Amino acid sequence: MNGIWKIWAPRAKDIEVVANGRPRTAEPLGDGFFRADTPPIEADYQIRLDGKPRPDPRSRCQPDGVHGASRWCSDEFAWSDENFRAAPLSAALIYELHIGTFTPEGTFTSTIARLPHLKQLGVTHVELMPVAAFPGHHGWGYDGVALYAPHPQYGTPKDLKRLVAACHELGLGVLLDVVYNHLGPDGNYLGEFGPYFTARHKTPWGEAVNLDDEHSDVVRQFFIDNAKMWLKEYHFDGLRLDAVHALFDQSAVHFLEELTAEVHTLGTSLRKPLVLIAESDLNDPRLLHARDAGGFGLDAQWSDDFHHAVHSLLTGERTGYYADFGSVEDVARALTHGYVYDGRYSKFRKRVHGRPLGDLLGSQLLGYIQDHDQVGNRAQGERIGHLTSPGLLRAGVALMFTAPFVPMLFQGEEWNASAPFQYFVDHQDPQLVEAVRNGRRSEFAAFGWSPDQVPDPQAEETFRRSVLDWGELEKEPHSGIHQWYSALARLRAQTPELLDGRRDLVNVHFDEAARWLVVQRGPVTLQVNFGQSAVQLPRPVGQAVLSFPEHPSGDDFVTLGPESCSIWKA
Amino acid sequence: MNGIWKIWAPRAKDIEVVANGRPRTAEPLGDGFFRADTPPIEADYQIRLDGKPRPDPRSRCQPDGVHGASRWCSDEFAWSDENFRAAPLSAALIYELHIGTFTPEGTFTSTIARLPHLKQLGVTHVELMPVAAFPGHHGWGYDGVALYAPHPQYGTPKDLKRLVAACHELGLGVLLDVVYNHLGPDGNYLGEFGPYFTARHKTPWGEAVNLDDEHSDVVRQFFIDNAKMWLKEYHFDGLRLDAVHALFDQSAVHFLEELTAEVHTLGTSLRKPLVLIAESDLNDPRLLHARDAGGFGLDAQWSDDFHHAVHSLLTGERTGYYADFGSVEDVARALTHGYVYDGRYSKFRKRVHGRPLGDLLGSQLLGYIQDHDQVGNRAQGERIGHLTSPGLLRAGVALMFTAPFVPMLFQGEEWNASAPFQYFVDHQDPQLVEAVRNGRRSEFAAFGWSPDQVPDPQAEETFRRSVLDWGELEKEPHSGIHQWYSALARLRAQTPELLDGRRDLVNVHFDEAARWLVVQRGPVTLQVNFGQSAVQLPRPVGQAVLSFPEHPSGDDFVTLGPESCSIWKA
Repeated sequence: MNGIWKIWAPRAKDIEVVANGRPRTAEPLGDGFFRADTPPIEADYQIRLDGKPRPDPRSRCQPDGVHGASRWCSDEFAWSDENFRAAPLSAALIYELHIGTFTPEGTFTSTIARLPHLKQLGVTHVELMPVAAFPGHHGWGYDGVALYAPHPQYGTPKDLKRLVAACHELGLGVLLDVVYNHLGPDGNYLGEFGPYFTARHKTPWGEAVNLDDEHSDVVRQFFIDNAKMWLKEYHFDGLRLDAVHALFDQSAVHFLEELTAEVHTLGTSLRKPLVLIAESDLNDPRLLHARDAGGFGLDAQWSDDFHHAVHSLLTGERTGYYADFGSVEDVARALTHGYVYDGRYSKFRKRVHGRPLGDLLGSQLLGYIQDHDQVGNRAQGERIGHLTSPGLLRAGVALMFTAPFVPMLFQGEEWNASAPFQYFVDHQDPQLVEAVRNGRRSEFAAFGWSPDQVPDPQAEETFRRSVLDWGELEKEPHSGIHQWYSALARLRAQTPELLDGRRDLVNVHFDEAARWLVVQRGPVTLQVNFGQSAVQLPRPVGQAVLSFPEHPSGDDFVTLGPESCSIWKA
Repeated sequence: MNGIWKIWAPRAKDIEVVANGRPRTAEPLGDGFFRADTPPIEADYQIRLDGKPRPDPRSRCQPDGVHGASRWCSDEFAWSDENFRAAPLSAALIYELHIGTFTPEGTFTSTIARLPHLKQLGVTHVELMPVAAFPGHHGWGYDGVALYAPHPQYGTPKDLKRLVAACHELGLGVLLDVVYNHLGPDGNYLGEFGPYFTARHKTPWGEAVNLDDEHSDVVRQFFIDNAKMWLKEYHFDGLRLDAVHALFDQSAVHFLEELTAEVHTLGTSLRKPLVLIAESDLNDPRLLHARDAGGFGLDAQWSDDFHHAVHSLLTGERTGYYADFGSVEDVARALTHGYVYDGRYSKFRKRVHGRPLGDLLGSQLLGYIQDHDQVGNRAQGERIGHLTSPGLLRAGVALMFTAPFVPMLFQGEEWNASAPFQYFVDHQDPQLVEAVRNGRRSEFAAFGWSPDQVPDPQAEETFRRSVLDWGELEKEPHSGIHQWYSALARLRAQTPELLDGRRDLVNVHFDEAARWLVVQRGPVTLQVNFGQSAVQLPRPVGQAVLSFPEHPSGDDFVTLGPESCSIWKA
């Protein structure tokens, strides 16, 4: 029993659908749409665009990769998560992972075995880096081109559903990173079908996705339907939207606003909250404001300012965008203002940047000291734990868990994994390989790295090096770090005041010269000495629940040694 | 007694200021700024950028044109308009005029003699098309490059102040059209001084003005200071912002929002309301929403939808953007919804366009049936009165004056002047002349015009043809049209309900097939028959105060002949 299927291909004169080797002409419906009978379930098929065989832009499965035939998959799956509801973001601990390097096998299925570790750690939401199919075996996933199909090396659509189901079974929510601002450079056939891209705006990747030019209604719907597919058919609990600052849209209803409205309406009909989290470089609270207040209504956004403030303070790095950070005050500002740059002049950007968050909550920002970009976009992909002292690393972790933000971890950071997260690709086109290799080298030449210090992104060992080694989790010093993360996650989960996103309730004191900072939130006090000299601070109420290293405290004072921290609870 | 003067020229190594022939080196202050003594009052001077003599980007006077020396003008002027306050926009009648063609002499001074005519007509605000200096003798003014200096052929800065003073003397407000989205193609030296433009965004005129890239703070300030100069030093009562849809700004505080805040603050300190009116193609109410509601806080915007709906209905034209209009319903929608396209699919744009105005007032939109663009951007620059019947012309005028919008007239429309408003330039560069000429021809070739039917923009007669002939004002049929405009302007001014911008109080009925429409607002009823057959409509309360042509009315019915209209007042 076949259904009817509509294909949008305004740039094609005629279209055939070839299923199981048998071509059938599709009937033009006008406005660039064609109508065809759906292929049989599990059949392989291709769309012949004026004779050229192409994968279906909405293909749900590309068993032989993004250039090959599409497979018409059944949506059937034995779900049993009707009653599952993910934790609210205000109480969340998010864990970002990359399917290909999280486990040695690098598949949806192999990921399942590691979920109990996350649950034990206190994670509430797993966030998968993009899983949409891209060319080659391995890659970060931001070069996806078959946006409706899971990357075949990770597994089948059914495997991905099993992973989501396993998370829900354990009480873990699952978020998916989706990339709507560009498509990868290889295997992107969309432009042959229709005006998915426009020269009206430029992005770092070339022509922008067409969100406001002729025929943009259909293009917008393509991405909105994609979002809804992951949420509805795969039961994801929310999406992370890659680099929304590269979504250019001058329409009176911005694409993000339309997407938010559609996704939240879907959530209402599914009777579960669906969240949208933006990666944004804009420091613009409009993204988070409610739609009826002139905003786009997104639930939360990644905020690099907290990361940069902590990273530059812990490592002393001041190159690139870290030029804008480095003071204890920046960390204090992040904790109380959310954005460090909220209308202040940025040396790095050479202009005033951002706008105050106003009464938006800290829990609408994600706070992290590692993520795939901040680790992976370094020449050698080092984690913060590879770059700073054990004391300062622990201080950074404590800052994150006591901040008013939603904490987010990047795979392996909870034991300061030895594996870096390097930039790896598996492009098929030699010219593209060379361009990416040289691009990477010249990017870091500007920071003084010689070409041989920059790992070759195309080399398989670059990928392999980035795979987590789970064996080290139980070994020192990793196990000690892991305990630190676990204890802080527990402290946070058990202290309602730490889950309260109101930034005006965050009490921060610091001394720039003496290099100490104290954060007080309800019963919890965090004391940090970033400096090289011991400092004496007033003894907080209650008792020290976590300290590194152990240090003496008298009746009235606590002596914090160099690069140390202490957490007290009343 | 000289002052200190700062020049921003980050792209120059060294700078000299040559005043009265004597060069003086400017002292670098860092961040691209240089400091110099101000030239003597009334001295001619140039800035030598690494040896090249250039006009001052902020020159207040370019006596020898945009390529020549700048003159350091005194700001002194004997103002006597301390107590003048322009009418609020809700009670305004705006009159758009072009200094170069409004009078045969084409100067600020010659304009003054015609102000009593405007006052008598009921005009409350004169709006000057751009007066910033551009190369050549004549032009529309959208090719301005010396944005702080009045076009020398129009007169001196003092002459312009005299014109504003004369308007205020008569009780007329004065608005100025300013162009911040691009500079003209000839004489634009800004890019040699600093990054005034950016490749981040594209406009129809090339690189966009740099509002969000490196160093954009100074560029934004350049335009904001320009706005404030016209308002403060020239006593303008407001500005019309050209094509704001070509101002690309991704910052968290949009340039328009910053400009509005600065201008309204200036108004507060000057104790007079200053208005900002945008030309916008976006149908986006965000422009008009208050800043604390996520908007940009502009006072009003031009709205082409009312124009297009009326124009296409009155002329039967359906080419270009008129393809989206033509029904009686479109006029009704404009009157009640403000935007005809408020989230509906546009055939012309090939996408959904706009967003509902919500509870914004009709008086935040300007309503017009002629403006310099809608007349001048036609191949032959015909006015609506040259294209439709006397009855339909009067119907259009009546629709405008009884609409909830702020009515705006274009010079000469009040007597259906014979002069067209054609596209004329006086470029100096032969290549540019050829490019503009060919561009114009090929633009209209698409609409079936042969090259010889399109007036040569560079020919002086094209300019001359566009100059108003004031002699015809007293002659039929012009004097009859003039009476019609005067009577309607009077009716509007004397009927508070017509000045009430609430769109939900506008009562509209129409019959698409029978081609009639009735607008009822408070005591006033407008009946229009757009069609070729007579129609019978219920007799409104009160009596007919204006009808064209005269027509019979019985006790219960009014018979409207073909292409006729009638205005009743209770």
